[in-house]
Amino acid sequence: MRDAYHEELDTIGDGLVDMARLVGSAIGRATTAILDADLKLAESVIAADEKVDDLQRDLEGRAIALLARQQPVATDLRIVVTSLRMSADLERSGDLAQHVAKLARLRFPDTAVPHDLHATILEMGQLAQRLMAKAAEVIITKDVDLALQLEHDDDAMDLLHRALFQHLMDDRWKHGIETAVDVTLLGRYYERFADHAVSVAKRVVYLVTGEHADEIASQDTVNTVEGA
Amino acid sequence: MRDAYHEELDTIGDGLVDMARLVGSAIGRATTAILDADLKLAESVIAADEKVDDLQRDLEGRAIALLARQQPVATDLRIVVTSLRMSADLERSGDLAQHVAKLARLRFPDTAVPHDLHATILEMGQLAQRLMAKAAEVIITKDVDLALQLEHDDDAMDLLHRALFQHLMDDRWKHGIETAVDVTLLGRYYERFADHAVSVAKRVVYLVTGEHADEIASQDTVNTVEGA
Repeated sequence: MRDAYHEELDTIGDGLVDMARLVGSAIGRATTAILDADLKLAESVIAADEKVDDLQRDLEGRAIALLARQQPVATDLRIVVTSLRMSADLERSGDLAQHVAKLARLRFPDTAVPHDLHATILEMGQLAQRLMAKAAEVIITKDVDLALQLEHDDDAMDLLHRALFQHLMDDRWKHGIETAVDVTLLGRYYERFADHAVSVAKRVVYLVTGEHADEIASQDTVNTVEGA
Repeated sequence: MRDAYHEELDTIGDGLVDMARLVGSAIGRATTAILDADLKLAESVIAADEKVDDLQRDLEGRAIALLARQQPVATDLRIVVTSLRMSADLERSGDLAQHVAKLARLRFPDTAVPHDLHATILEMGQLAQRLMAKAAEVIITKDVDLALQLEHDDDAMDLLHRALFQHLMDDRWKHGIETAVDVTLLGRYYERFADHAVSVAKRVVYLVTGEHADEIASQDTVNTVEGA
């Protein structure tokens, strides 16, 4: 049986997983809402962010109480402090999903996304959701290899983001400025969402190995990277 | 004379002030770089962000060492945890200033900002810099009234941001899509920078009063706010 202290640590970990699942679901639903111009779905995503904020507040309260009561050191201390940071990443991811939903609401009954960009935005939304699902799995399993995978997935997000910009900058763009502004912001929201998912995974790597994910990745690829 | 513990807390506070000053300077210089298409200045802002990152790493190391060695409780614990959060806000503000500088570099020898938006972007840049200067002062003085002022200043940023969008959406916009995209992102960078400055100030309010800034502000304005 685990002692009260480690049970409390587990509860904090569970809270992080719950947050990751909620924001992963939120970005998926927000993407559907903006592509289908579904106002009801957008409203539900916007409302659901409160639950994420509540979870974060709860988790922070527990973490600080744990620091005060148990005064952990070494690894345990690092786990608690890192949990606080992960919860901040996840809370911010929830905000970004909410931004997507708010844009869907703002443009309703139109859709903010022109048809020739539906596929790209759908792909960004799905990738964002997958990244967050993997981040949740990394929190549960502490699987360093899986965590390092997220960086590769994030490269795919960067490519999608770049494709989006190329499409915008194309002389044949015919959707006007308002849509260009909407698509620019959308691209940024998905990119930042993905960054936060990667950041969560990297923090787990740091907890498990004591090394930053970048250091481990560079050990693997030192012979293949391009010169500075 | 102060004991070693409180000296170490002071050092952490000094680190936060140093970070705030650096990023305040960075956003001012980045704004000049983008308005004047000054490549050298842009490069110097981009390079200087490393110093901000170093300060954050140093500060986090000190905060965690302090938690481990001194095991503070109550207010002292809250100060250390809140310092970690403030340093994350400031580090992110540095990134945003760097984004502005990178956009200046990307468009060099052109400027990303069309002439009819120079005044608005200049105002956003100056306001962002002022907000961060006030945030630094709030860290030093722990002046709750000054901290609450930042929220009003941030309203001015929101107005500028809205004006920027109105200009973009105007049928007479004649600068093309690329510039619309650049200006959209710039607006977002300044707005987020300001949010982080406000967040730093709010965290000080919470430390000093134990109440969240929103609660205090709503006590002041409860009779004047519009219905939900």
